[in-house]
Amino acid sequence: MQTTMTPVCPAALGMPFQDVDTPALLLDLPAFERNLAKMAAAARQAGVALRPHAKSHKSPDIAHRQIAGGAVGVCCQKVSEAEAMIVGGVRDILVSNEIVGTVKLNRLARLACTGHMSVCGDDPNNVADLSAAMVRHSVTVDVLVELNVGARRCGVPPGEPALELARMVARSPGLRFAGLQGYCGTAQHIADYQERKRAIDHAIAQCRITRELLASNGLECRTITGGGTGSYEMEAASAVYTEVQPGSYIFMDAAYARNRSKDGSPFRDFDHSLFVYSTIMSTATRDAPVLDAGLKAIGVDAGMPRIWDLSGAQYLRASDEHGTLQLPPGTHVKLGEKLRLVTGNCDPTVNLHDWFVAVRDGRVTELWPITGRGAGL
Amino acid sequence: MQTTMTPVCPAALGMPFQDVDTPALLLDLPAFERNLAKMAAAARQAGVALRPHAKSHKSPDIAHRQIAGGAVGVCCQKVSEAEAMIVGGVRDILVSNEIVGTVKLNRLARLACTGHMSVCGDDPNNVADLSAAMVRHSVTVDVLVELNVGARRCGVPPGEPALELARMVARSPGLRFAGLQGYCGTAQHIADYQERKRAIDHAIAQCRITRELLASNGLECRTITGGGTGSYEMEAASAVYTEVQPGSYIFMDAAYARNRSKDGSPFRDFDHSLFVYSTIMSTATRDAPVLDAGLKAIGVDAGMPRIWDLSGAQYLRASDEHGTLQLPPGTHVKLGEKLRLVTGNCDPTVNLHDWFVAVRDGRVTELWPITGRGAGL
Repeated sequence: MQTTMTPVCPAALGMPFQDVDTPALLLDLPAFERNLAKMAAAARQAGVALRPHAKSHKSPDIAHRQIAGGAVGVCCQKVSEAEAMIVGGVRDILVSNEIVGTVKLNRLARLACTGHMSVCGDDPNNVADLSAAMVRHSVTVDVLVELNVGARRCGVPPGEPALELARMVARSPGLRFAGLQGYCGTAQHIADYQERKRAIDHAIAQCRITRELLASNGLECRTITGGGTGSYEMEAASAVYTEVQPGSYIFMDAAYARNRSKDGSPFRDFDHSLFVYSTIMSTATRDAPVLDAGLKAIGVDAGMPRIWDLSGAQYLRASDEHGTLQLPPGTHVKLGEKLRLVTGNCDPTVNLHDWFVAVRDGRVTELWPITGRGAGL
Repeated sequence: MQTTMTPVCPAALGMPFQDVDTPALLLDLPAFERNLAKMAAAARQAGVALRPHAKSHKSPDIAHRQIAGGAVGVCCQKVSEAEAMIVGGVRDILVSNEIVGTVKLNRLARLACTGHMSVCGDDPNNVADLSAAMVRHSVTVDVLVELNVGARRCGVPPGEPALELARMVARSPGLRFAGLQGYCGTAQHIADYQERKRAIDHAIAQCRITRELLASNGLECRTITGGGTGSYEMEAASAVYTEVQPGSYIFMDAAYARNRSKDGSPFRDFDHSLFVYSTIMSTATRDAPVLDAGLKAIGVDAGMPRIWDLSGAQYLRASDEHGTLQLPPGTHVKLGEKLRLVTGNCDPTVNLHDWFVAVRDGRVTELWPITGRGAGL
């Protein structure tokens, strides 16, 4: 039984980017490289480790470039995503999530044979299952106790409950207590800078008191990790977090750009490098031309995409395979014309594609397969 | 360079469905078969051809079951989707969409070597390109002139503009004029039955006048195709449409079910057969447990999914890989507990998965690969 098709590649090396077939993900390499370098410099200057989140790109090619720029490894959110990274040669992975169920725990244990694996925990039963799986495979994994630092999405309460779970981790065979994860997901997208800062200050304080409580009980947190593209400089400057895990900074989606551009310098710091490339495939309704990229090419959970190449035009409505535009009066587009779109949320958008088509000086210079695409298990 | 990972399969044949790993797509086979049979009977009774839309399932296994039940073939929306069907052995495909650009037209022409291919057109330049591609490959393809019957998403205006394009098709080498497509996408999801019927009555009238105009000019419409799960019985009863192309009926998503259940008998006719299976992966915040299925496992463009297995519980918020629940007071869930979810829009959800895990009498009896997953080119 054939279980998968070889993904059609929308481009060939050396072609002008205008010849790339659509829908496709275009990566502006100079902008991407500036983003890589800026984040690496920011982490270096703050004296924290950089462990970018691979859930944004799902591509070992990008992970290797992040590591070459100084990242200590990457984060993954799923075991199958980590498998794609391991197969692609990445050897230091934090699964920044709880892994539940014997099937996945066994797969995680097998990955721990091939490199340095870390994982989060927020439940004693899960920690017991994790320990049992590692013992079955004669491996050891680093465990970070995840704190609920305000986002109410996974994580034990800070303080005593965290101490209790950390103690259990520390005495469990096959597990090494490594520290804390305190990722405040909801804060990443708070539009107002001061409000976002208050949320992160709270997260920092929760990590600090928990770190101190653990230290006074003989448990050292080697790592305290968290922070995303919306807040990383706050965690990096906290003297509490030892590691930041931003993902979207390499691409900059519309949602993050909207907020960060309001923050003012030094926050206006990353460029859009990722575009969904799309073709006008119908102009039969003149004022409402249709693009070939809809819900199966663009994540719309953070709103419709912005049209990068046509001032005043709006992406009005997404259906499964179509996007209907609204043009400003007097504007026309031609059948076959191609437009770049900036997606609201880069992560679910990348998950819909098989290739990054990387462009420099107007030509395709790299093709990176998104081998972790759809890795949900 | 490894360009793709072999997709991890979440299940094994014969296992109880409770052991299926998550997130996964469960298919309730008896419900699915009832849906298949009901639509086949409805088309047969109305005397129209049934050409279900494969964009909903992207699986040759399902296409073959539809054809075995009397369907004349399937619709696809993209050339790469049609390629997955051809590779899977399906031989009669309508690409119910305009195909723009030489690369895709050449691929379409190659598919026409292997079976009966039809495609839509709504633009003279596109029809010229289509003809040239077919001539280059020494093949012939059926062309349906697409009408804008009210949805304003592709399609020439009915009447004279359609006649003009049909004439061009009829005289173009490599093309065979086959008739009209009049699909009213926007009408499919109109909640009020009478309002939906008015929209479809308008579409029917537009097809009728265009058919008559073409006939009086010597152009016979062998096929007039359209209609989706929200309206197919109206097109089927029109004595104008010769073919209906519903897709979602096999699965029934929450959006279609909401509307159709209001229509009253005989419209309360399809059962939910498709479920996203998901595991509770954190209960650390007791009243807001977290599922392992978020934006990368469930399309949320038509709203958050319904929770099928836990009365009163709500899927509150989707993040990339997590779903946060709200439980009714007094309700608790256990870590590792699995829940079935009904998705708002089945098409973009199926596109996020690699397998249908088909279940009968509580056990996995079939595993169907979604080989057209992500076929966007």
